Amino acid sequence: MREVAILGIGQTPIGEHWELSLRHLAGEAVIAAMADAHVEPPQVEALYVGNMLSGPLNRQENIGAMIADWVGWRGIEASKIEAACGSGAAAFRSGLIAVASGACDLVAVVGVEKMTETVGPTTTSSLATAADADWETAQGLSFVAINALVMRRYLHEFGWKHNDFAPFSINAHANAAHNPNARLREPITQKEYARARMVADPINLLDASPIGDGAAAVILCSADRVRPNGQPAIAVAASASATDSIAVHDRDDPLYLAAAGQSAQKAYAQAGIGPQDLDLFELHDAFSIMAALSLEACGFAERGQGVRLGLEGEIGPRGKVPVATRGGLKARGHPVGATGVYQLVEVVQQLRGEAGETQVPDARIGMAQNIGGSGATVVTHILKRR
Amino acid sequence: MREVAILGIGQTPIGEHWELSLRHLAGEAVIAAMADAHVEPPQVEALYVGNMLSGPLNRQENIGAMIADWVGWRGIEASKIEAACGSGAAAFRSGLIAVASGACDLVAVVGVEKMTETVGPTTTSSLATAADADWETAQGLSFVAINALVMRRYLHEFGWKHNDFAPFSINAHANAAHNPNARLREPITQKEYARARMVADPINLLDASPIGDGAAAVILCSADRVRPNGQPAIAVAASASATDSIAVHDRDDPLYLAAAGQSAQKAYAQAGIGPQDLDLFELHDAFSIMAALSLEACGFAERGQGVRLGLEGEIGPRGKVPVATRGGLKARGHPVGATGVYQLVEVVQQLRGEAGETQVPDARIGMAQNIGGSGATVVTHILKRR
Repeated sequence: MREVAILGIGQTPIGEHWELSLRHLAGEAVIAAMADAHVEPPQVEALYVGNMLSGPLNRQENIGAMIADWVGWRGIEASKIEAACGSGAAAFRSGLIAVASGACDLVAVVGVEKMTETVGPTTTSSLATAADADWETAQGLSFVAINALVMRRYLHEFGWKHNDFAPFSINAHANAAHNPNARLREPITQKEYARARMVADPINLLDASPIGDGAAAVILCSADRVRPNGQPAIAVAASASATDSIAVHDRDDPLYLAAAGQSAQKAYAQAGIGPQDLDLFELHDAFSIMAALSLEACGFAERGQGVRLGLEGEIGPRGKVPVATRGGLKARGHPVGATGVYQLVEVVQQLRGEAGETQVPDARIGMAQNIGGSGATVVTHILKRR
Repeated sequence: MREVAILGIGQTPIGEHWELSLRHLAGEAVIAAMADAHVEPPQVEALYVGNMLSGPLNRQENIGAMIADWVGWRGIEASKIEAACGSGAAAFRSGLIAVASGACDLVAVVGVEKMTETVGPTTTSSLATAADADWETAQGLSFVAINALVMRRYLHEFGWKHNDFAPFSINAHANAAHNPNARLREPITQKEYARARMVADPINLLDASPIGDGAAAVILCSADRVRPNGQPAIAVAASASATDSIAVHDRDDPLYLAAAGQSAQKAYAQAGIGPQDLDLFELHDAFSIMAALSLEACGFAERGQGVRLGLEGEIGPRGKVPVATRGGLKARGHPVGATGVYQLVEVVQQLRGEAGETQVPDARIGMAQNIGGSGATVVTHILKRR
């Protein structure tokens, strides 16, 4: 398989876009990515759409064809890839394999979700479809409730206090303040974190990421291609996907994200690096507990010690392990099926040196990890500047 | 890219499987395909699931991970691919590219749908998500109503009578009578066709395919592999996907399935053959009008003349263009996201000479075409015996 690179990136702000339909959102991101790549529409051969909830929330499936037509690509191959909140990176991986295999030379990947203005069932009940319908949600568990059980167990097992998770949310909000596309751009304090309204004990409002409407897109090409401005395209150094049981109670260890560990290990092996070589890590902080567990699963901290990196001030843009550098799920926002592509777009920004006030100094290698459900599907990518 | 072959096939009967959940259905098909391939579980590296409606109907997403775990493959890569009723073949194509690229050596593809016992919105309104939510279903059109408008236009434009479509349904039911997995196994007569209850004028009950619960699966490998019984695996000679506008009224010609034509032409070019070289064609006869339009788009008949092949007796297993040889969508049944995989499984049965009473004599090359929506996403595969 040949090496693949990201030629262009695009994104919409994340918010309540009641004036924009699903196709408008996706179209904006794709067109921005095309402009960034200086690519003309007829050159793109296939479109891979990451999306979780268009069926229940927007009553629209078949969105691959719909979006392809909307952006002026009627006729090209298109499909939607779904892996719950991991859909974005799963779609990216499909696009990557299409180019790596030689089946296509130029493809687009867009992650899109429209969640704040919907028809049909509630967003909360639809998000719960990421969990086990027969054995988790049938018992009345919402998705945040499942994460609350995991966080409660973590506090119990390792003796941390709720406040010890504050640095994850404070860092995310501080970074998002400088990201014009972020949904929550207000910095928060330790005091605000401690006093935030409870959602599902021990997860409070500032542990939880906000949903939103948004889309992010990339144009993928073979790695020998050079960007129109003379800069090399950002190479995809590794891509790996792994799964775990969909229900948390089916796992040997509910506090270990086995699929995150497995996909990260595969990615490290592909890239020939270890966690210590990464300049940044866009992790899947849907809830603050997931940030800690992701750091542990990916080799940045021992079991039960993920929170320590935050407490020691190592997760900011100038820390040892910069995370959520553009706001993360927590503050940039979490339009679920789009999130994985936002993460990749943000790593590209960092590796290009276009991350502004939250630029990681001389970032050369970055990782993005997108998680579907409470750890059931995990897709990890490592990007590098050449 | 290397050549890919189908090592094993499996399927469940299509019916009202109220005792089986989505994972049970998928598991049965996958395990049957594994047994047919004589493959041990640890060898399979990835699972691609074709499914359209698990979100709205079963309130379950993330089914890639769920099914992988259920069949004993916890940890492997898995995702769901959605392209409305074309999801099955789209998932097959993802699996194909994974093997063709060398990313994987052995993958499983399963199409699964559970439609007769559901939670949430009705099946009819969920099926309508294959059409344009903003411009078709918002006007009150159901999916059958859209096809009825197309059929009415066809009758008007070319002067055929409703009865001229009867051979499609009669052939499908006659063939399904010999398929133990078919949902409707009763032969029908011309008189019964003419008198069937109207669904959406001019589409009556015997023009329309029945939905159902079911799953079909294949195991894909590189083409140099030989089946355990010494027979060569059935090779995938071509794979192509194309799209059209999602709304019928956006097309230059509402009576031409442009994406079907485009994907078939790409497939013919890949396989180095033309329609005259095919021994059978498993077409997407969700409605009898779609059978006629598919034959026309794929080069078997001139515009407006697709029905003639039926009237001339050329669509049976011993005709010039055998279609729906195991019952087609019309009588085998149409568990939407699974259908594309059923079609491929049935072509394999024909090419292996395992199609029993409806065996096409000495079948060597067969095509399967899976359509998502009213022609918006079309995926075509050509298989050949070596």
